[in-house]
Amino acid sequence: MAFSLMPKTTEFFDLFDMQAENLVQGSRLFLEIVNEKKFEDVSAERMHALEHKGDEINHKIVNVLNETFVTPFDREDILALAGNMDNIIDAMYLITKRLSIYKIKETTPELKQYAVLLEKSVLTLQKMVKTMRLGSKAMKETLKYCVEINRLENEGDALRDKAITHLFEESKDPIFIIKWKEIYEAAESATDMCEFVANTVETILVKNN
Amino acid sequence: MAFSLMPKTTEFFDLFDMQAENLVQGSRLFLEIVNEKKFEDVSAERMHALEHKGDEINHKIVNVLNETFVTPFDREDILALAGNMDNIIDAMYLITKRLSIYKIKETTPELKQYAVLLEKSVLTLQKMVKTMRLGSKAMKETLKYCVEINRLENEGDALRDKAITHLFEESKDPIFIIKWKEIYEAAESATDMCEFVANTVETILVKNN
Amino acid sequence: MAFSLMPKTTEFFDLFDMQAENLVQGSRLFLEIVNEKKFEDVSAERMHALEHKGDEINHKIVNVLNETFVTPFDREDILALAGNMDNIIDAMYLITKRLSIYKIKETTPELKQYAVLLEKSVLTLQKMVKTMRLGSKAMKETLKYCVEINRLENEGDALRDKAITHLFEESKDPIFIIKWKEIYEAAESATDMCEFVANTVETILVKNN
Repeated sequence: MAFSLMPKTTEFFDLFDMQAENLVQGSRLFLEIVNEKKFEDVSAERMHALEHKGDEINHKIVNVLNETFVTPFDREDILALAGNMDNIIDAMYLITKRLSIYKIKETTPELKQYAVLLEKSVLTLQKMVKTMRLGSKAMKETLKYCVEINRLENEGDALRDKAITHLFEESKDPIFIIKWKEIYEAAESATDMCEFVANTVETILVKNN
Repeated sequence: MAFSLMPKTTEFFDLFDMQAENLVQGSRLFLEIVNEKKFEDVSAERMHALEHKGDEINHKIVNVLNETFVTPFDREDILALAGNMDNIIDAMYLITKRLSIYKIKETTPELKQYAVLLEKSVLTLQKMVKTMRLGSKAMKETLKYCVEINRLENEGDALRDKAITHLFEESKDPIFIIKWKEIYEAAESATDMCEFVANTVETILVKNN
Repeated sequence: MAFSLMPKTTEFFDLFDMQAENLVQGSRLFLEIVNEKKFEDVSAERMHALEHKGDEINHKIVNVLNETFVTPFDREDILALAGNMDNIIDAMYLITKRLSIYKIKETTPELKQYAVLLEKSVLTLQKMVKTMRLGSKAMKETLKYCVEINRLENEGDALRDKAITHLFEESKDPIFIIKWKEIYEAAESATDMCEFVANTVETILVKNN
C-alpha cells in the first residue's frame, strides 16, 4: 500500500482505532452481561450507549471524508470499512436487546463461549486496524489478522451448530426454542460482521497493493 | 456534485422518479391492506403487479446504462441505487405475501404503525431522489432526507422491539408467534431497505462531492 | 468487453471454471442426499469437503489477484464474483448441515424440487462463466444466462411460498414447522446466491461494455 502518512490519513486511522476500541468495550460489556446473567433492560441500555457512540464515530468518518481530497484509500472503501465496523456494535446491541426482550433468566455454556469468541475477534480486529495504518510494510501482519478473524468466524459457525443441536435435543418447548435459536443466530451473525470487516480490509489491501 | 444536466442524466432521474412513485403506490396499497384487513391472495397479487413494475423500471435503468457513455455518477452506483430501490417494493411484496400465506385475519396496532412508517419513509425517499437530480446545489437538502430516512429506520427498529415484546407477552401459541414474528421482521426489513437506499445516496454524494 | 486474452486472464477464468465445476458437484451431491434421504452427518461432511474446496479456489483467486497487474476486469469485481460464487457452496453446505442437525428422516416434494432447481441454476451459472471468458463477442449469450438464472430464482421464490403454505396447512407441530421453515428458506437462499452471481456478472458486463 503506497499511501503516505498525511495528516488526514492519521485522522482516519485515529477514528478507526476509536471505533475498534468501542467494539472492545462492547465485547467486554457483553462478557459481563452473559457471565453475570445481567439480562435486564439496563444492560441493553448500556450497550445502546456504545451503539450510539459507534454511530457518532461513523458519522465523524463520513464528515472527514467530505472535507478531504486525498484519502489513504478509495472513498467507498473507507465508507465500507467504517460501516462494517459499525455493524459489529449494532449486532452486539441486537443480541443484548433480544436477551432483555425475551426475559432470559439463565445463561448457557454456548452463549458464554460466544462472548469469549466475540472478544477474541474484536481484539484481533483492533490489532488489524492498528497495523493497517502502517501500510505496505505491515501488509503481511495485517493479512495474518484477517486470516485469524476468518478462523474465529469458522469457530462461531461450529459453535452455532453445536448450540442449535443441543437446543433441539434438550428442549421440547417451542417458544423457548424460538428465543434461543434467535439468540444463537444473532451471536453467530456478530462474528460474521467481524469477518466482513476482515474481508473489506483484504479488498483494500488487494486494491492498494 | 459537479454533474451537468445532460439528456441521459434526465433520463436516469426520470426513471428513479418513476421507481420512487412506484414505491409510494406500494406503501399506499400496503396501508389499505393493513387498515382494511385485506389479507387475501388478491391483495398479494395487486402488490405483485407493483413489484413487477419495479423490476421493469430496474431493467430499463440497466438498458439505458448500457447505451450511455457519460453517466451522472459511477455506473456501479447507478446499478446499486436502482437495485436498492427495487428491493423496497420486493420487501413490501414479501410482507403482503406472508399475510396471505399465513391466512392472517386480524391486524395489530404495530402492523398499522409499520404501514404508516413505511409510507413516511418512502415519501421522504421520493423527495430525496428529486433533490438529488439538482446535484451539488441541493446537496444539503438531499443529505437532510438521508438523515430523516435513517431516523425513520430507527423508529422501525424500536417498533419491532415493542411488537415482539407484546407478541411473546400476549401469546402462548408458538405457531401464531412464528407467523407474526416473521411479519414484524419483514416490516422492519422494509424500513432497512429504505435506509440502504439513503446510504447508497450518501455514498454517491461523498464520491461526487 | 474489450479485454484481451492475456495469460493471467486465462488463469482467472480457469479458476472461475473450477469454482463453477465445484458448484455443479455440490448440486449433484445435494440431489443425491435429498432423493436418497441421506440426511446423516456423513453427507454434511461430504458437502463440507466441497465447501472447503470452494474456499481454497477462492483464496487462489485472491492470491493470483495479488500477483497480477493487469486484470480482465476491476479487481474488486473479481473479488465480488469469486466471493459470491463461494457463497453458493456455503449455502448448500448450510442446508445439508441443517438436515443433519435437525435429524430429518423424510423428504418432501418441495425439497426435491429445490434440489432439481439448484442443479439447473448452477449448470446455467457454469455456462455463463464459460461464455464470460469470450468477452464482448459473447456478451449477449452471457446476459441470456444471467436472465435465465434470475428466472430460476423467481421459481425458487414461488416454490418457497408453496412449500411454506403446505407446511403450515399440514402440520400443527411447531418444532417440525421451525425446522422445515428454515430448510426451505435456506434452499431459497441458495437460489438467491446464484442470482447474486448473475447480478455481479451483469455489473461487470455493464462496466466493461
